[in-house]
Amino acid sequence: NLAAIDGNRDSEFDSLTSSILEKTYYNVETHQPESLDWFNVLIAQTISQFREEALNNDNIYHSLTESLSKAPLPDYLDKIRVTEIDIGNDFPIFSNCRIKRSPDHGGRLEAKIDVDLSDTLTLGIETKLLLNHPKPLTAVLPVSLSVSIVRFSGCLSVSLISTSDEVLEDTTLANIPSSSTSTLDEGEKGKLSNGTALMFSFASDYRLEFEVRSLIGARSKLQDVPKIGNLVESKLREWFVERCIEPRFQLIKLPSIWPRKKNTREPLNNPSSNVDDNTSTLNAEEDS
Amino acid sequence: NLAAIDGNRDSEFDSLTSSILEKTYYNVETHQPESLDWFNVLIAQTISQFREEALNNDNIYHSLTESLSKAPLPDYLDKIRVTEIDIGNDFPIFSNCRIKRSPDHGGRLEAKIDVDLSDTLTLGIETKLLLNHPKPLTAVLPVSLSVSIVRFSGCLSVSLISTSDEVLEDTTLANIPSSSTSTLDEGEKGKLSNGTALMFSFASDYRLEFEVRSLIGARSKLQDVPKIGNLVESKLREWFVERCIEPRFQLIKLPSIWPRKKNTREPLNNPSSNVDDNTSTLNAEEDS
Repeated sequence: NLAAIDGNRDSEFDSLTSSILEKTYYNVETHQPESLDWFNVLIAQTISQFREEALNNDNIYHSLTESLSKAPLPDYLDKIRVTEIDIGNDFPIFSNCRIKRSPDHGGRLEAKIDVDLSDTLTLGIETKLLLNHPKPLTAVLPVSLSVSIVRFSGCLSVSLISTSDEVLEDTTLANIPSSSTSTLDEGEKGKLSNGTALMFSFASDYRLEFEVRSLIGARSKLQDVPKIGNLVESKLREWFVERCIEPRFQLIKLPSIWPRKKNTREPLNNPSSNVDDNTSTLNAEEDS
Repeated sequence: NLAAIDGNRDSEFDSLTSSILEKTYYNVETHQPESLDWFNVLIAQTISQFREEALNNDNIYHSLTESLSKAPLPDYLDKIRVTEIDIGNDFPIFSNCRIKRSPDHGGRLEAKIDVDLSDTLTLGIETKLLLNHPKPLTAVLPVSLSVSIVRFSGCLSVSLISTSDEVLEDTTLANIPSSSTSTLDEGEKGKLSNGTALMFSFASDYRLEFEVRSLIGARSKLQDVPKIGNLVESKLREWFVERCIEPRFQLIKLPSIWPRKKNTREPLNNPSSNVDDNTSTLNAEEDS
């Protein structure tokens, strides 16, 4: 009787969940949302480092140019050239973190976090609009436009799972219609065994605001610019929806945080590191 | 003038840090410590899953037996056999999280978190004590003892860094006297480039309490048991100190959380996943 087995599994799971909540002193119904100001600082510090690196050696320009040259384009668009990049100078703010039971994953406990980003991330490009009717290349219109993401807000769901957990059996690689999906093989799930994975997704009522501007030519001469702007905006939105808007979620295997010798570091200016054999130092610390 | 360059770098770093704190509304001097109750729940859920797995198929017994059989033993100890394993049933409590400037890593911002674990993690073993004086195997004393970790508390420092960051240049693989250190090669640092890494360590005033019990024989016949208990305790303490007690720290490369197709999943019971070509579904969502 499969229903009975499922029922047993569910009630076992419920009692496990209750025990976890009890031992961590968390009441899902009454616990106040918690702030994440410390997390905002750590994330901002990391983003700030990435921005420095991206700007220092034009990394961002080169990788964007490369990915745009590889992207499949509709037949009415010429090759796209990057003319402007703004990687922003503000940071996302995470707040209002609370634990809820996930309705999607059998009552698993997950953290819901509000995310807000008010920043301007701009990509400016030049291309040509190709009019192929009534016959190919009837007209060629140079187009220069910039697309900015100016605001994102949404509710992020986060949980940690053991990668041998049955949630993996109850999910599938999202069926994204694209040529590159074919590079995935059956090995993906096997690679995830024995470890912890981060699951995250955004609720479908997210807000993602764009600003699209035409940079050259009179608007009367470039009547198709809104169409291109809409195309770019819809591609970006589709990219996001396809990957991490519920019910879809990202599942990312985390490395083990078990302390290991190979991951151990010490500052070079630490006096004990100047000693070839620091067994004596360690023994002294042992007694403390 | 190296000092001047260092000075410039420091003041640039300071203004960057100030800007990060300002934009994330965090005042290091006045901000109240934050609770991490949500994190305790997520961590407890993961630990709970690992415990189930460890118990289900004796994984923990087999891996402990294997690692004990490989461990180098002093010549007065016979082979060690595992007789008791208790992997605990409580969870660590993280609390009191606050952002501070790290004195060790050039003012980098790090989170300080109090960690407390009251649980009983027990390893019971059987072995033989070999007395090799005045000549080899003068006496062989069977010994059975159990070592429990009953309490851990300490202050955890956590930060995120870009792996191309200069902190990596200012650190070195900790000089741990052990045969297995020799398996490390120059490639370790190269592997870390281009990504984010988690740095963590514990302050040296941590508390780690053990209980060591002799399980067989009269205490008068086993006068060396305290010595073995001390040996095991000191080995465990040394293991910990060598890896993650300041100034040493663990540096663990994190995977990219950038949403990718290959990491995208959806629940099998999601109606849209039953549609072979769900482009239409995605287009509908795009408009929301």
